Amino acid sequence: MDQKQIPDIVIGRLPLYLRALQSMAQEGRQVTSSQELGERLGISAAQIRKDLSQFGEFGKQGTGYDINFLRDQISHILNIDHVWDVAVIGIGDIGSALARYGGFANRGFRVAMLFDNDSQKIGKVEGGFNVWDSANLVQVIRESNIKVAMIAVPGDSAQAVADKLVEAGVRAILNYAPVTLNVPPEVRLQYIDPVNHLQRMTFYLD
Amino acid sequence: MDQKQIPDIVIGRLPLYLRALQSMAQEGRQVTSSQELGERLGISAAQIRKDLSQFGEFGKQGTGYDINFLRDQISHILNIDHVWDVAVIGIGDIGSALARYGGFANRGFRVAMLFDNDSQKIGKVEGGFNVWDSANLVQVIRESNIKVAMIAVPGDSAQAVADKLVEAGVRAILNYAPVTLNVPPEVRLQYIDPVNHLQRMTFYLD
Repeated sequence: MDQKQIPDIVIGRLPLYLRALQSMAQEGRQVTSSQELGERLGISAAQIRKDLSQFGEFGKQGTGYDINFLRDQISHILNIDHVWDVAVIGIGDIGSALARYGGFANRGFRVAMLFDNDSQKIGKVEGGFNVWDSANLVQVIRESNIKVAMIAVPGDSAQAVADKLVEAGVRAILNYAPVTLNVPPEVRLQYIDPVNHLQRMTFYLD
Repeated sequence: MDQKQIPDIVIGRLPLYLRALQSMAQEGRQVTSSQELGERLGISAAQIRKDLSQFGEFGKQGTGYDINFLRDQISHILNIDHVWDVAVIGIGDIGSALARYGGFANRGFRVAMLFDNDSQKIGKVEGGFNVWDSANLVQVIRESNIKVAMIAVPGDSAQAVADKLVEAGVRAILNYAPVTLNVPPEVRLQYIDPVNHLQRMTFYLD
């Protein structure tokens, strides 16, 4: 399997399948089907079967999918059968919420390190973590071998932070600042901007 | 123009164009091109021209786009030439961060009302707003004529909140709870789950 050949939109659906499977496993369930997954997710059963078939054979016609097995396989495909340490840059409201967020547990990530450039925050504890000085970001992240980071600084300093993260060897950045960033092609970049989601919905309202 | 005929993926790019245009306008710029927009956003100039052509003629070959004009046109298309009041349900870390978030200003939305079911929070002020009792959510939202809401409650109560929002007449929901929700087809639904974004990136890491 050459992973680069698989459309990114297919990769984007795997986390949804995984979340539904983890939820079913927590309910004590053993077996599911593409029909049931599709109903839970609002995705057609045919689409789910087609997506999964790109990675191998995970179920049998008529007997469905073993939930734990498929969950473990998708975790492996997504590279989260080990836990990734994540750095959070910018400990304002959003960064603090991320530091305390319970939703990372058992999903492949753990917040490991916080940074801010505000001397009032540096050295304080937030969500159980010491806040480090952003001035030392490149050195500290490189020495910690952290490859995943979330940017939660104001828009006008987000690009400078991204540049430092790339210099430190970070390879996946989730950006909460409401600006578009430039990173080298080998670095993955995703955005969370609630206003984009809201605007995408108001298009359809009267 | 029949808006229903335009692919949702095109609608999803309009907020990105708008954000870039607003940023250029703030820089005091007058004119831009699909090439420049494309470089800022990592989207091809041809794609941008094709997307915009679905809604009309906004620029001339060789002279480019008037930034303020195109910004206002896209705002109109996205239905944000007026400001939408938004309700936030669940005033934990994420809900509090949303109540105080400065990024809604001038982008078509304003947080107008907060709800929680915790008697310790009800009646308190958060981000300048009184926190209302979720028990009165249907009545209060209906009387306020609020059509847009953000859910920031724990996963196991998110569906019940969504049901109440639909009953109250809300037509666009942004869900921060890490669960898939069911709403009637006439209600728009978007998700923000940072773990989905992180998993989508770790797929590509070694």
